[in-house]
Amino acid sequence: MIGDTSGLELLQALSRGDYPPPPVMRLLGMDGLEVEEGRVTVTMPVMEYQYNPLGTVHGGILATLLDTATGCAVHTTLPAGQGYTSLDLTTRFIRPVTIRSETLRCEGTVISRGRRTAIAEARLTDSTGRLVAHATSTCMIFDLQRSQEEA
Amino acid sequence: MIGDTSGLELLQALSRGDYPPPPVMRLLGMDGLEVEEGRVTVTMPVMEYQYNPLGTVHGGILATLLDTATGCAVHTTLPAGQGYTSLDLTTRFIRPVTIRSETLRCEGTVISRGRRTAIAEARLTDSTGRLVAHATSTCMIFDLQRSQEEA
Amino acid sequence: MIGDTSGLELLQALSRGDYPPPPVMRLLGMDGLEVEEGRVTVTMPVMEYQYNPLGTVHGGILATLLDTATGCAVHTTLPAGQGYTSLDLTTRFIRPVTIRSETLRCEGTVISRGRRTAIAEARLTDSTGRLVAHATSTCMIFDLQRSQEEA
Amino acid sequence: MIGDTSGLELLQALSRGDYPPPPVMRLLGMDGLEVEEGRVTVTMPVMEYQYNPLGTVHGGILATLLDTATGCAVHTTLPAGQGYTSLDLTTRFIRPVTIRSETLRCEGTVISRGRRTAIAEARLTDSTGRLVAHATSTCMIFDLQRSQEEA
Repeated sequence: MIGDTSGLELLQALSRGDYPPPPVMRLLGMDGLEVEEGRVTVTMPVMEYQYNPLGTVHGGILATLLDTATGCAVHTTLPAGQGYTSLDLTTRFIRPVTIRSETLRCEGTVISRGRRTAIAEARLTDSTGRLVAHATSTCMIFDLQRSQEEA
Repeated sequence: MIGDTSGLELLQALSRGDYPPPPVMRLLGMDGLEVEEGRVTVTMPVMEYQYNPLGTVHGGILATLLDTATGCAVHTTLPAGQGYTSLDLTTRFIRPVTIRSETLRCEGTVISRGRRTAIAEARLTDSTGRLVAHATSTCMIFDLQRSQEEA
Repeated sequence: MIGDTSGLELLQALSRGDYPPPPVMRLLGMDGLEVEEGRVTVTMPVMEYQYNPLGTVHGGILATLLDTATGCAVHTTLPAGQGYTSLDLTTRFIRPVTIRSETLRCEGTVISRGRRTAIAEARLTDSTGRLVAHATSTCMIFDLQRSQEEA
Repeated sequence: MIGDTSGLELLQALSRGDYPPPPVMRLLGMDGLEVEEGRVTVTMPVMEYQYNPLGTVHGGILATLLDTATGCAVHTTLPAGQGYTSLDLTTRFIRPVTIRSETLRCEGTVISRGRRTAIAEARLTDSTGRLVAHATSTCMIFDLQRSQEEA
């Protein structure tokens, strides 16, 4: 299936519910996927099970949302037959997030799309629209017959 | 309690089970916390509920382990009355992680400890000892009477 | 002098030529400083003495422009009596830069301004407006009576 | 020439003075290149012309040393016929650097070497051996018949 469908079509099908959400999205309660070419939005309600020992949402949970948004934004630019892998994610934590932040919204945008790499950024905001974290990521793009294992 | 206990004592108590593990550690199945001054190790068995749509563990889950290791490593250097917050986390993904990776081991080490900031790195390895991801992080250190909200 | 002048006023005076440019700007031929609150632009003509062994401008030279733009953008937000120091700089290299890139233009923008930290991004473009590199940076803000050495 | 020589041989020849140093090394006074497989050291005396407006060495100059060390460390692992390009550089600034720091020493080490990407870190120390900055970088590896422009 993946080989015959563009990244945009695949993510649009996922956002319509044609496919079940991937496991990590269920685990963390991610929802509300919206996709267009070069841009993706996803939401997540804050829950106390996401907390670290300091009584705020663990930075890694925020990184999961940000990595989802940057990776999916790059994915929307891929034709059928191409895949990607995230090489890195630089996350900057701006404000502590608690259940008072309510539902987080994460928007990923492609900054640069080359032949073999793409760069995306993501902005994570709380229910009042304040920026709580920011990320950038470089993804490597490859033909799907080449295994991801090669990297 | 936090104000009377050094970071090292607090994390040692947590590793002995004197306190319940923080929510995110339960959620992801993190375990095996070992602490000494400037160094922390934590483990996590790979489970399919940690997967992304590509059939590998989501990069954000790996970032959660890495952020735990860098943050706790910095925490072990703090005297009673001081706290920290992670300003950023740069994660580099090296190999795809699947259930064949079995139990991951993440070791965080302090690279630099200044008066107001500290830098730590973390290395994440699979059950055969191969490096699967790497991270660095800068933490800001503050007196606990100053609120983390100030940042 | 620094204690009596806001960052914006200081950088505006520098852009008018009221003060001599700092040494590194002369060394690399940086010029064309434009400043407003939260945003700074600087230019640099590409010269072969900026080349690495691969025959392109060394990534560190591009990082110098990007670090200048992010740092100065943060500086424009500081009142008299406050200083800053860059904690880190994440640079992403997008296209090789050569003398055919002609004059580079680097624009720095503040993404987030907190009480003790600020985050800025910078975009580096060639003479045709194509993005050649991107950076983000976290700066720590402090009162000038506290020494920068403390960090 | 480049196609017939391994990265290690090429850098060893450069360190012996068989080739003139690349332009940016002359510009900044970099010297003392030492190379072995997976590890490179380079030195640079601090000069006031490297200063920023704050009276310390500009962070971009430090990034240039760090990028040189990470890139060359990766280069030492490449057989004849392969090239590399730096995708990114994350630099963390630890202490202000002035002429009192005297000669800086920068050591780059390969952390991970895959088929298509490699990760390196670099540590920058002053003349007393104190860590003043740290960096990590991901490089993309390619066959030299493929143009670097493709990325």
